[in-house]
Amino acid sequence: MASRVGFASRLWRDAEQKQSRVVVGLDPVVEKLPRALVERCVAKAGDPRNGGAEAVWQFNKALIEALADIVVAFKPQIAFYEALGPCGLEAYAKTLRCIKMHGAISIGDVKRGDIGSTAEAYAKAHLDSGPFEADAITINPLFGTDGIEPFLRRVRSNAKGLFILVRTSNPGAKETQDLDTTGADGDRGPFYMKLAKLVERWGSDTIVEGYSSVGMVAGATYPEELSSLRREIPGAPILIPGYGAQGATASDVVRGFDARGFGAVVNSSRGIIYASGEEADFASKARTAADSMRRAIQEALAERGG
Amino acid sequence: MASRVGFASRLWRDAEQKQSRVVVGLDPVVEKLPRALVERCVAKAGDPRNGGAEAVWQFNKALIEALADIVVAFKPQIAFYEALGPCGLEAYAKTLRCIKMHGAISIGDVKRGDIGSTAEAYAKAHLDSGPFEADAITINPLFGTDGIEPFLRRVRSNAKGLFILVRTSNPGAKETQDLDTTGADGDRGPFYMKLAKLVERWGSDTIVEGYSSVGMVAGATYPEELSSLRREIPGAPILIPGYGAQGATASDVVRGFDARGFGAVVNSSRGIIYASGEEADFASKARTAADSMRRAIQEALAERGG
Repeated sequence: MASRVGFASRLWRDAEQKQSRVVVGLDPVVEKLPRALVERCVAKAGDPRNGGAEAVWQFNKALIEALADIVVAFKPQIAFYEALGPCGLEAYAKTLRCIKMHGAISIGDVKRGDIGSTAEAYAKAHLDSGPFEADAITINPLFGTDGIEPFLRRVRSNAKGLFILVRTSNPGAKETQDLDTTGADGDRGPFYMKLAKLVERWGSDTIVEGYSSVGMVAGATYPEELSSLRREIPGAPILIPGYGAQGATASDVVRGFDARGFGAVVNSSRGIIYASGEEADFASKARTAADSMRRAIQEALAERGG
Repeated sequence: MASRVGFASRLWRDAEQKQSRVVVGLDPVVEKLPRALVERCVAKAGDPRNGGAEAVWQFNKALIEALADIVVAFKPQIAFYEALGPCGLEAYAKTLRCIKMHGAISIGDVKRGDIGSTAEAYAKAHLDSGPFEADAITINPLFGTDGIEPFLRRVRSNAKGLFILVRTSNPGAKETQDLDTTGADGDRGPFYMKLAKLVERWGSDTIVEGYSSVGMVAGATYPEELSSLRREIPGAPILIPGYGAQGATASDVVRGFDARGFGAVVNSSRGIIYASGEEADFASKARTAADSMRRAIQEALAERGG
């Protein structure tokens, strides 16, 4: 049995309270951070890697403080921290702690996936109490059920959330996720729809008030696919990347929402965190950008009658 | 153009010199390490996480020293290090350095995969000079070509190797990788064969002496699938998991090799690193287990006429 307060319930409650479906991706690349901030941190640390990691942390901290009341979640992309080595992963851990301190939801964008015994180690790393614990994480479904089970256990027992890759926002997705596939039941359809049906099954015993805590990642850059996923799998939360820098608009993303205006959250990374390259105003410009995205989506939902 | 000494050339050269196709998976779980070692490290560090990470490093160091001359590569599985947080990833970095110092090949079992800009960060993290640099890494292909390109660039320019997930060794693989799929060319076949054809295409400009440096992961627990992959994609190195603890034998794994006795390497983790639970002899027992696996595969190859 799912606990009565699942991850999805918390997500919609916060989305309603903040009147925001915006997720901000914290994808810091040292070369793109305000130069004065990086130079000061590198000079203090005495080496580029430690200094870069410190600059990343200072950057994230300012963004979290500036944005926590108008965004429903923050989504640090772990690749950008891994690129800095162990000290980068210290910055990742500090970022997650800071998000929690500010009462916001954290989505660890880790896209992990492996066979059962290894998936257990990843689940422990990213969903159990410890430095990398997030409220939800992204997962790669290529391994099938035994690769997902360790993560599902944390959804059931500890109110964690998952967003499982189904139809990603990049051009190469066509070569794999769109392939025409026949399931064991004889049903034909694109591979991503087979993945979505697995997501539905995996989340079936986590449903609270109509919503599962096992969601999907489905890019807004392919609006038709997003619409069909929303229609076919109504209870799974969708994490929608692709807004802003990748080209999708508010009228694209509303296709991922249900009639109540829930069922999805929308991520933007570069379009918000790099709204200004100056140390003096990057956080305030990020707030302006995030608030404008927040309003655009709320208005599009209201117009649609969401 | 590929450089004349690609990753595959180095792999076969070492396999021939050491008369070994054995890869040892360094998948350390603190609870399974020799208890005396863990207790001493935890007492010294003063906390279980740092102490656990130190024990992992001491354990790996002893294994690398004991095994480097009879195994062709070591494959640390990063999940087990991530489970210990940033200090675990320090142990991962030290393990990679130690493998290099002993002249062996390192395969970082990271199974990363993401869209292009994020894949670039992962490629930088795991294939460029830095704490997590490995000679080769495992990759998840679900994102298609733009998610692979940043890794391919390091194969071409820096003699790195990739092993891309195609048909994994776990039961759940049937639900996704075996689905009957029709390609853009109208060709029908299991999804994993579509992935294998992508791997072949991705590696086509890295071929040196008939072998690509863009390989596949294909489990020995499904020998028929392994045979058909070897037949269809002759130039791609196969990393074969599933030997030992997962149930596959030497006569299963030979199906992954070509007539010259190259084209594949075989991983075992638990069956070797936990051959003894005692601090006094875990490394020597691991050597006995690895050498017995080495001989079994060499003999099966010789019998087959490989």
